[in-house]
Amino acid sequence: MGIVVQKYGGSSVSTIEKIQEIAERLIKRKENGDSMVVVVSAMGDTTDDLINLAHEISSSPDKRELDALLSTGEIISSSLLAMAIKEKGYESVSYTGYQLKIQTTDNHGKALIKDLDENRLKESLKEGKIVIVAGFQGIDSEGDITTLGRGGSDTTAVALACKIGASCEIYTDVDGIYSADPRKLKGALKLDSIHYEEMLELASLGAQVMHSRSIELASKYDIPIYVGLSTGDIRGTLIMNNMYMESKPITGIATSNEDIAITLKDINSNVNIISNLFNSIAEEKINIDMISQTSPVDDKVNISFTIPKDELEECMEIIKVYVNDTQITFDEDITKFSVVGIGMKTTSGVAARIFKLFSDNDIEVKMVTTSEIRITCAIKRSDELKAIKLVAKEFDISK
Amino acid sequence: MGIVVQKYGGSSVSTIEKIQEIAERLIKRKENGDSMVVVVSAMGDTTDDLINLAHEISSSPDKRELDALLSTGEIISSSLLAMAIKEKGYESVSYTGYQLKIQTTDNHGKALIKDLDENRLKESLKEGKIVIVAGFQGIDSEGDITTLGRGGSDTTAVALACKIGASCEIYTDVDGIYSADPRKLKGALKLDSIHYEEMLELASLGAQVMHSRSIELASKYDIPIYVGLSTGDIRGTLIMNNMYMESKPITGIATSNEDIAITLKDINSNVNIISNLFNSIAEEKINIDMISQTSPVDDKVNISFTIPKDELEECMEIIKVYVNDTQITFDEDITKFSVVGIGMKTTSGVAARIFKLFSDNDIEVKMVTTSEIRITCAIKRSDELKAIKLVAKEFDISK
Repeated sequence: MGIVVQKYGGSSVSTIEKIQEIAERLIKRKENGDSMVVVVSAMGDTTDDLINLAHEISSSPDKRELDALLSTGEIISSSLLAMAIKEKGYESVSYTGYQLKIQTTDNHGKALIKDLDENRLKESLKEGKIVIVAGFQGIDSEGDITTLGRGGSDTTAVALACKIGASCEIYTDVDGIYSADPRKLKGALKLDSIHYEEMLELASLGAQVMHSRSIELASKYDIPIYVGLSTGDIRGTLIMNNMYMESKPITGIATSNEDIAITLKDINSNVNIISNLFNSIAEEKINIDMISQTSPVDDKVNISFTIPKDELEECMEIIKVYVNDTQITFDEDITKFSVVGIGMKTTSGVAARIFKLFSDNDIEVKMVTTSEIRITCAIKRSDELKAIKLVAKEFDISK
Repeated sequence: MGIVVQKYGGSSVSTIEKIQEIAERLIKRKENGDSMVVVVSAMGDTTDDLINLAHEISSSPDKRELDALLSTGEIISSSLLAMAIKEKGYESVSYTGYQLKIQTTDNHGKALIKDLDENRLKESLKEGKIVIVAGFQGIDSEGDITTLGRGGSDTTAVALACKIGASCEIYTDVDGIYSADPRKLKGALKLDSIHYEEMLELASLGAQVMHSRSIELASKYDIPIYVGLSTGDIRGTLIMNNMYMESKPITGIATSNEDIAITLKDINSNVNIISNLFNSIAEEKINIDMISQTSPVDDKVNISFTIPKDELEECMEIIKVYVNDTQITFDEDITKFSVVGIGMKTTSGVAARIFKLFSDNDIEVKMVTTSEIRITCAIKRSDELKAIKLVAKEFDISK
């Protein structure tokens, strides 16, 4: 009997038939007494199609214009869903990002939500309407259209839920969160619930189910997020503040093959150069993940770090300001292998167990980075599946 | 060296290649010293494709949602055009209807422009940018997206030109205004210029080149409109306040097969019923054109009128409130044949000449309506081409 914010991904609204099915679902839920706010992504491959159009014009299309272009995908799906609900005799209204005054930073393509005006939305709910919201988009202080980047519609949904104090349900094409990618580990376990922090680590590490920013947001406002299939009755996973007295040290494993390691050799260990370089990269919102640095020899150090492969070009433009071509080498044979678990906070020796396991099984660890609840190793691509299987068995997170 | 507002129709921007050609044109013009504002329609068949999507959901889709849906077509083409210009190294920016605060009535699908805020546009021009505007759209007082209906992008262009005191150029797939439809009269003459009032009559009568509302607007502000091809150097037609001391009585002929005649029999000649009926129809913005009424017999009259065929369903809903089914008959065998000419103001006897010509050639005139500068007859479809040829010859407006 509360307010529910739901989000449906692109594959859930890829055809008119599917949109009509979602409309039925929403009406049923509404009939059960819930007030419904529904965020939708663009239909099927619409966003990719629009990006392809832009790329016919330019290999790096103007970002302001690209955002205006891409925002149309969600306007199309949201207006069609509202139409479908009205056609079935129920009240509905669709809103674009600017109509809900979803204010963002002006970082086109990767904008962050600053605030939104919930009044119009609440008014529509009061009038008994099922409110449909075009996900993924907002406006900056100039009134220019922005998009929120990957997972943007999830972020829209969570932001709305936080702002109006609703629960949040993300419907997607996976039936929940698993202890490891089921395509990579046959016996992966589906989790009933997972802690925000764990999900956050998994999300930032290649578990594509949800983008980390929406989990951060939900965590900040303590809004539980349900993740599950948009069809059928298979129970999904709740992302929430689940504090168990006892838990396994590791909840899940995530691996990612999307990164490339860059090594800069013989860099003057002058701290300014290094910090300036990393600052410049950070300013472009390029996500550097693993960093390692050798000890200075004759005031020279080697620095290695990983970045997403698709940000390599942008990153190189910055690096070349500081470093000569001859000093740069790349390693593409990188799988980022991560284990995540709130339990690590209270269980020591997890890293040692993993390193021993890898060593015993001839898995080379190229780089390591850790947080309080995660350990990430860069390993060879060819070792990925072996490593998942070994670690899942060692920590009892597979069937 | 002034400000020019140009408008490109859907066929001029139907592919990325064509968009790039337009970008080249605009840059050349800009290089010549003009400040450019460019209104674009949706690419090719985009609007029809979107309408078809909506019709998969409903035979009469919710109008508010349909407008939100359709508005995306012009956002796509305008952002792509701005991208293409920037890719060629020139400054450009695209604006949606709401970003230029194009305020309209809330009449979804047929909204009228009330006002627009030219400040942002002027600022961008000052910064040397080629400004691209998504045509066909605005927002109502609630901030809901509206569309302007047929010829909407022309209206956007003319409204912008009026507001900023620019000249206006409409680029389309016809090379100018002709004395008659060249597909229907081989020797039709292309006009160098045509008076607003004449064009207004022709437009409202089936000459599809421009919608009447944009001509009205241009006439009100005395902004000349150039109409021509978007490619090549063929000279088009200027729609303007061309006052010649002497002119032919007739400038052009227009015919339309889009109408249906409705006859209501034995209506009580009580004026209230009739005026209420026509008021109700007008409130729905259905364009009644020709009206004729018989003299009362026993307080009963027959009323005939024509409406656009595609508004028949909507119109019938209203008529049935006032009249029984048995009293209604339809005539679909209707061609609206019109002659238009400012010269008719000073030349009398034009109607008489046409009626004699038709009578001598066995062309039945079913209904007649006239204005100061036009005569329209409803004739049989099969007489259409014969009538055009005869009248063009009689009044010397063909080769």
